[in-house]
Amino acid sequence: IANLIGGAVEGNPSALVTHPSKIEEGSKGSITFLSNPKYEHYVYSTLASVVIVSDSFNPTKPVNPTLIRVKDVYGSLGMLLNHFNHSEVLQKGISDLAQIDPACLIDESASVGHYAVIMKESEIGAGSRIYPHSFIGSNVKIGKDCTIYPGVTIYNDCIIGDGCIIHANAVIGSDGFGFSKHQNAYVKIQQVGNAVLHSNVEIGAGTVIDRATMGSTIIEEGVKLDNLIQIAHNVRIGKNSAIAAQSGIAGSTKIGENVILGGQVGLAGHIEIADNVTIQAKSGLASSEKRKGAKLYGYPALDYGNYLKAYAVFKRLPELLARIAELEKKLNEKENKPD
Amino acid sequence: IANLIGGAVEGNPSALVTHPSKIEEGSKGSITFLSNPKYEHYVYSTLASVVIVSDSFNPTKPVNPTLIRVKDVYGSLGMLLNHFNHSEVLQKGISDLAQIDPACLIDESASVGHYAVIMKESEIGAGSRIYPHSFIGSNVKIGKDCTIYPGVTIYNDCIIGDGCIIHANAVIGSDGFGFSKHQNAYVKIQQVGNAVLHSNVEIGAGTVIDRATMGSTIIEEGVKLDNLIQIAHNVRIGKNSAIAAQSGIAGSTKIGENVILGGQVGLAGHIEIADNVTIQAKSGLASSEKRKGAKLYGYPALDYGNYLKAYAVFKRLPELLARIAELEKKLNEKENKPD
Amino acid sequence: IANLIGGAVEGNPSALVTHPSKIEEGSKGSITFLSNPKYEHYVYSTLASVVIVSDSFNPTKPVNPTLIRVKDVYGSLGMLLNHFNHSEVLQKGISDLAQIDPACLIDESASVGHYAVIMKESEIGAGSRIYPHSFIGSNVKIGKDCTIYPGVTIYNDCIIGDGCIIHANAVIGSDGFGFSKHQNAYVKIQQVGNAVLHSNVEIGAGTVIDRATMGSTIIEEGVKLDNLIQIAHNVRIGKNSAIAAQSGIAGSTKIGENVILGGQVGLAGHIEIADNVTIQAKSGLASSEKRKGAKLYGYPALDYGNYLKAYAVFKRLPELLARIAELEKKLNEKENKPD
Repeated sequence: IANLIGGAVEGNPSALVTHPSKIEEGSKGSITFLSNPKYEHYVYSTLASVVIVSDSFNPTKPVNPTLIRVKDVYGSLGMLLNHFNHSEVLQKGISDLAQIDPACLIDESASVGHYAVIMKESEIGAGSRIYPHSFIGSNVKIGKDCTIYPGVTIYNDCIIGDGCIIHANAVIGSDGFGFSKHQNAYVKIQQVGNAVLHSNVEIGAGTVIDRATMGSTIIEEGVKLDNLIQIAHNVRIGKNSAIAAQSGIAGSTKIGENVILGGQVGLAGHIEIADNVTIQAKSGLASSEKRKGAKLYGYPALDYGNYLKAYAVFKRLPELLARIAELEKKLNEKENKPD
Repeated sequence: IANLIGGAVEGNPSALVTHPSKIEEGSKGSITFLSNPKYEHYVYSTLASVVIVSDSFNPTKPVNPTLIRVKDVYGSLGMLLNHFNHSEVLQKGISDLAQIDPACLIDESASVGHYAVIMKESEIGAGSRIYPHSFIGSNVKIGKDCTIYPGVTIYNDCIIGDGCIIHANAVIGSDGFGFSKHQNAYVKIQQVGNAVLHSNVEIGAGTVIDRATMGSTIIEEGVKLDNLIQIAHNVRIGKNSAIAAQSGIAGSTKIGENVILGGQVGLAGHIEIADNVTIQAKSGLASSEKRKGAKLYGYPALDYGNYLKAYAVFKRLPELLARIAELEKKLNEKENKPD
Repeated sequence: IANLIGGAVEGNPSALVTHPSKIEEGSKGSITFLSNPKYEHYVYSTLASVVIVSDSFNPTKPVNPTLIRVKDVYGSLGMLLNHFNHSEVLQKGISDLAQIDPACLIDESASVGHYAVIMKESEIGAGSRIYPHSFIGSNVKIGKDCTIYPGVTIYNDCIIGDGCIIHANAVIGSDGFGFSKHQNAYVKIQQVGNAVLHSNVEIGAGTVIDRATMGSTIIEEGVKLDNLIQIAHNVRIGKNSAIAAQSGIAGSTKIGENVILGGQVGLAGHIEIADNVTIQAKSGLASSEKRKGAKLYGYPALDYGNYLKAYAVFKRLPELLARIAELEKKLNEKENKPD
């Protein structure tokens, strides 16, 4: 491994490594890494067999695992994870059983699996892998080194940046939920926009991203969406934000950069969330949060600490009610009693 | 466009139109419409380039956009939206790569995409479009002018009315969640009913509608369901109701007409919701709501205004607790003080 | 039917039976069963035409339906439900239109539908049915008598026990949501584990079970998961637990045996839930519940009764606030009044 990532070994050079791990979850046979100095203390306690550290790392206590010193810890980690990559290998090239419109531009280094369908005038970039049963609509652009897992549907006109990963059965670019009511019946507002994913976006299994009514639903660079998430029409999610499973964002809401949403969070439509905001799992937010770095919790969401304090009293409400009644009784008695 | 919809132009006849919009969201190059008099004020402020209005529309202020006067605004809107329709065009007819049981009745004007599978004795009506990778079980009836997007699975015996749209990866007619417990293990209760969609129903991507244990799960005419919704066995949803994304309706619950559920709403099983009820996003309802037009909010849901008022005090609970303690202290002091 | 299940008829031997039902939901033409003595009173009131009862059943009141007496009520029920089974019939054997890697072991009694794809070195057990458009990754093991409905994706290295049912568009073994943050960008932690379903597990439509970061996400024997559920990486769900639709379990959480979660429940990561715990629909749990049989409700969840009591007072909070203000006013007046 030291050869693979070009590092210098310190400690037992024959340590057996079978899988990667986070440094705080290291176990025998695992290889992990230290990059953020905040985690340095784990180096002294981890059960991992090997830790990749920086050239300049200077241990202050004895270290059990074998160390591999490298110049660029993260670069080495990338190489290492690729080494352990267990993901499905697709045949090279285009399956004879895929249906690709002749007016498509498929890079010769891209792979397309059995029974995939690509409609007219779409483009697939170098090194991208389209798994079986994927449907790529017409005029779709998929960048370089993307992975589109089985059963994904990408509607027409959508754009997927370089290095994106879209998990099985996700849907990109379905119609936004837009209707006008006419004599008690809904008339469909045609959704003529698209959905755009910038580079290095990962989309979980079963997640749905609707196309815009007009313009684009936009997922910026480095955003990570977990499984079964709903992103409505005309939403915009800022760079490097991460959203846990089953959360839903209603139409036209704008989310800043580095925002974190826990699982099952719901955001109303037409609101704005500032950069670095964190929203606790299962919270609901009906209005904008413009304070950067705010931490929210509850339904509807309050400041994290305030919700916890209010909820602590909520649990005691029956007691409070009794105490109020007791106070009223006493005061009544006092009033009725001649002084 | 005036020719397309048979209207009379008033104002600049060469206004350039690139897309439709809602009147309140009009922008340069957009064409919109005025039907509901409630929205008349938007005609005077909209940035849209063209507004379709009724023959009888009588402006009370100066109007910037070009007007097109027509007899039937909604009929014209329909024609117009079709004009802008960007949805995927499927090849005419049946792909050689679809597998259709010979005992099916497929109208000659229907389209069936690559790798679609239609099992025995199913019917597809005139003008309906079945996209690639759809699975239509046996004995399924699909009406006229339906659109079944890629990856949709319709289980056997289900019925889809005319003009329905089912988005990618939705599932219609999967087994209801029904089990008997026997010696700590669940025994499956076979789900022998079906799911029925009346006409003009739209189903969002990834939404699941279970078949009935017996009888039918029924989605009535004009109902609109957003993405990732769960409709359990034996549910019935009344005409022209609309449900936002990620809501779930448990088994055997009956929903009236023109009901609106926000996103991530949950309704318990075996309850009834009256016509015109509105339930706020993320609310949970465990019992029936029989008052027509009720507006509900919360978990469990209360009347909308009552929930807001109670929640406003909830936020102040730590303060209330302190005030009660202070009252108790004062009263105690008074009691212990000789009068 | 009596012949089919080997029972003795008591009452009208020519009662017409068209479908099975639960005893509490019996209707004319339905056949039902009595096993649990707790339900005995239903025998006297059910509208079902036929009830299967135990040899030893001794009615204490007049019985309307025809009885069929059998030795093993549950065994007979199983036979009966199979009789009424309406589920899709797949052709025998392997479709010429399925793509199966030559290095797979497919039992000769298994069925594989059109356009299914099975990657290298996977195994399908006797009697298992793989519907069209399913994707089975490499090195996957599927046991005997499993049903894999259309559009299911099973990622590489996953293991499915005997008798499992996986509904349409479910995903098994997608990547867990694991990232390290480096200079504000997320770096993917490769997910090198798998997902394992023990025997007799049923997975609802659109449900997603992520593979473990390392090791296995495990769904134990007899677990039933409804539709659109999220099971994160490294979760373990104990035997015979049942989870209703749209619930989500975050990473590394361990759930005991016979646990019941209502719909839309959310469990935080890295917690433990004891055996026989019941959690009410829509509740959220952020910490472990180690008391067996606990019944929880709320967000965050409290003991069921405590939440109900606290919520009953929550509704009256505006009134409480007014009562506190009134008390303060009176006490103030008292203080300011010379005694």
